[in-house]
Amino acid sequence: MKSPDVRWHPHSLDRLTRAQLKGQQGRVLWFTGLSGAGKSTIANLAERTLWGMGRHTMMLDGDNLRHGLNRDLGFTDIDRVENVRRVAEVARLMVDAGLIVLVALISPFRADRALARQRFEPGEFIEIHVDVPLALAEARDPKGLYRKARGGLIRQMTGIDSPYEAPERPELLLDTSVLGAEAAAQRVVDLVRAQGASRGVISQ
Amino acid sequence: MKSPDVRWHPHSLDRLTRAQLKGQQGRVLWFTGLSGAGKSTIANLAERTLWGMGRHTMMLDGDNLRHGLNRDLGFTDIDRVENVRRVAEVARLMVDAGLIVLVALISPFRADRALARQRFEPGEFIEIHVDVPLALAEARDPKGLYRKARGGLIRQMTGIDSPYEAPERPELLLDTSVLGAEAAAQRVVDLVRAQGASRGVISQ
Repeated sequence: MKSPDVRWHPHSLDRLTRAQLKGQQGRVLWFTGLSGAGKSTIANLAERTLWGMGRHTMMLDGDNLRHGLNRDLGFTDIDRVENVRRVAEVARLMVDAGLIVLVALISPFRADRALARQRFEPGEFIEIHVDVPLALAEARDPKGLYRKARGGLIRQMTGIDSPYEAPERPELLLDTSVLGAEAAAQRVVDLVRAQGASRGVISQ
Repeated sequence: MKSPDVRWHPHSLDRLTRAQLKGQQGRVLWFTGLSGAGKSTIANLAERTLWGMGRHTMMLDGDNLRHGLNRDLGFTDIDRVENVRRVAEVARLMVDAGLIVLVALISPFRADRALARQRFEPGEFIEIHVDVPLALAEARDPKGLYRKARGGLIRQMTGIDSPYEAPERPELLLDTSVLGAEAAAQRVVDLVRAQGASRGVISQ
């Protein structure tokens, strides 16, 4: 549907210029995993620490985005694909703006995460698998969704009647059945810090 | 289509915290006007100056977004409405992140711009009408679109066979038939500077 008459406007400020002003390299920390795995909790803790280090961050939470950008989307496979696509595009724009973007999104399908990764430069897309056995996620059930899904009140619940395809080679694997949220968040921060150092960005 | 089971996660960092780190208040400069009016040119010049002042900015250009986030949308009225809605949502997220966001988007319909404005706090949405007589925009025709539209090669061209509803009370009116791009950009910068001062943010 894209018109051939739509041209790309080159902009005077590019991502390197913006990154330079911020003293950091934009990137996306993409938290994927089952509902109840701890994605948002860990991402929030990590963001707070990064903020304390003077890093400029932004959180994109899948649930929250469904109240705004993605409020026209449901939970069918097609809508989930579009959901992930839009979040990736927004994250990409924010990385262009020089931000460290934390995405907390079930994003159950491997192919969609691979497409998201392709929208970024090598090294910019950090896939973080917040892993937990389904039984434990279901026992936590922070939003009561598993109970509803088991009771047939909601459908297409990831892990119940919709698949979750675990990452094969995530940049970081956090098993929250053995790792507390604070410790998990610290691993994320350590990874950002190590990457910043290896890229010649001042590590604070 | 939104599920009642989607909950809003309160985040530990809010917009004020982010703005504090950046030493600026997030806002959106929304450039609306005919194709060829000069929206992108002026926005780019203004962004460059703001960058020189140490402001953290991001540009959202309607044409460029059609290669990414909005690549599934065409130029029907319905698609234009969705186009503007998504850009407003992304700008809102970036303002939450503390950025000064420059949007260059024809956004021809008054109702859509009003909806966009509603997504922001009072004073955050700065509507800038980049105004020019159609005849002059058509004479400039930087992308050759008016020629194609007059020749019947493309349809739904704003100003030709699709309406442009001018803002009734924009925060800033720039008539590019009498004002050069540099001078127009300076007025934008002056407005940002004046607003920053009146809000107690350090004006640089």
